[in-house]
Amino acid sequence: MASLEIDRERCARDGLCALECPLSLIDIDEAGYPVATAHLEASCIGCGHCVAVCAKGCLRIDGIDPDELPDAPRTPDVLPEALCAWMTGRRSVRNFSDRRVPRGLIETCLETARYAPSALNFQPVEWLVITDAAAIRTLAGLCADFFRAAGSSQRFIEPFDAGRETILRGAPCLVVVHADAAAPIPPATDCVIALTHFELAAHALGLGACWAGLVRRAVASHAPAREFLGLPQGHEMYGGLMVGFPRFALKRLPPRKPLSIVWR
Amino acid sequence: MASLEIDRERCARDGLCALECPLSLIDIDEAGYPVATAHLEASCIGCGHCVAVCAKGCLRIDGIDPDELPDAPRTPDVLPEALCAWMTGRRSVRNFSDRRVPRGLIETCLETARYAPSALNFQPVEWLVITDAAAIRTLAGLCADFFRAAGSSQRFIEPFDAGRETILRGAPCLVVVHADAAAPIPPATDCVIALTHFELAAHALGLGACWAGLVRRAVASHAPAREFLGLPQGHEMYGGLMVGFPRFALKRLPPRKPLSIVWR
Repeated sequence: MASLEIDRERCARDGLCALECPLSLIDIDEAGYPVATAHLEASCIGCGHCVAVCAKGCLRIDGIDPDELPDAPRTPDVLPEALCAWMTGRRSVRNFSDRRVPRGLIETCLETARYAPSALNFQPVEWLVITDAAAIRTLAGLCADFFRAAGSSQRFIEPFDAGRETILRGAPCLVVVHADAAAPIPPATDCVIALTHFELAAHALGLGACWAGLVRRAVASHAPAREFLGLPQGHEMYGGLMVGFPRFALKRLPPRKPLSIVWR
Repeated sequence: MASLEIDRERCARDGLCALECPLSLIDIDEAGYPVATAHLEASCIGCGHCVAVCAKGCLRIDGIDPDELPDAPRTPDVLPEALCAWMTGRRSVRNFSDRRVPRGLIETCLETARYAPSALNFQPVEWLVITDAAAIRTLAGLCADFFRAAGSSQRFIEPFDAGRETILRGAPCLVVVHADAAAPIPPATDCVIALTHFELAAHALGLGACWAGLVRRAVASHAPAREFLGLPQGHEMYGGLMVGFPRFALKRLPPRKPLSIVWR
């Protein structure tokens, strides 16, 4: 459906749009101007990179107008070392304060995750955000039912049954990523990337989070947990995060395994 | 194998170590001191959070000594808004300058990714880093062979066969995450999280990257591509990134789909 329009008066003939297109759908003509290949109309994925790369703002693809795109965000003025330390300092948080999570903070995390990379710009990721404490507690119980009956993950179920909420840790918010499992590109990787961006954004905003792997396992196999989430027909849960304000902070950086790397 | 040692002289009896343990392996005795549960020795996952949370440094788990752990990194002094903009500004880079990627930068990205979250602290992620341009070009050709024979992804293969390196984009570096597919916890999510941390660290360091989805697909199905990577027996590739210095920058922020969210 896409078509390419060029303002030839303004075009710098630098060819960046053609270089930038992930699918090589733009050719450069003999005079140096970009032209659509025969495949562009059918194959354009609407990523907008050709429009976004043009310093002159002289290229339009159906529905993507350079004048309507914001400027690329400037990198904040921090040292790379500090940013890597910031990422390293993000640790899984399993103890949350009683403070409610303002919806605006979740929205900022979602808006940040919206720009996470997506295979062929397909953007299959959909979100479920639960902030009802009673609902989260109910879901934890449904997951516990599953593991108790399955006889697995007893190290979580024993303390749960003794009164500690070890499944969703009493988190004030649960964020679930899901997608149509039958999408043309398997959506698991896109979903996990997006949720990782969400987690780092949450860390930037002073929130803490922990991946809800037990919930994902229960939802995959236990109809009551699955029905409780109410995901659309054919959708699967590809990840979940418990989110809240940390109740306390780690004083030290915990150890990790050494890296296993082959260089070639 | 783990055993818990407490320096009772220094213990603040705040119970944080017991609250922090992901598996509830620490109890608090009547006097307020932490004690190992009967399950600790067999079930401790060695995450070190109990040691890292203690302000007094009075708790030791086999092999994890508080005096040997670095302090938790301080959050850099940047506004959360700037950090979210910084993440939003990371865009996939498919055009690389001729500049070689210093190994030290890759090592910094790997070191950052080492602290990405891992289910039950299993840390299954292993890395293959290829910086030999000829090897990367060979792999691109093997992938093209696969898609050409399979008759899929023609939009990449046609320009590849016309002389444009559309598979790995002539990237000076390819980073692959892989893991034992038969690990007790399916390792795909851990691998994608770690590679996402790598990509963001690369962005912080001025590098650009793009997910190598075509390579992953080819490696999953095409023996020559798989053999070329030389992964250990039973390992699968769960993600790959082309990495290099960006040849140019996007001037604008490309559009994305609106978010699909259900709030409950």
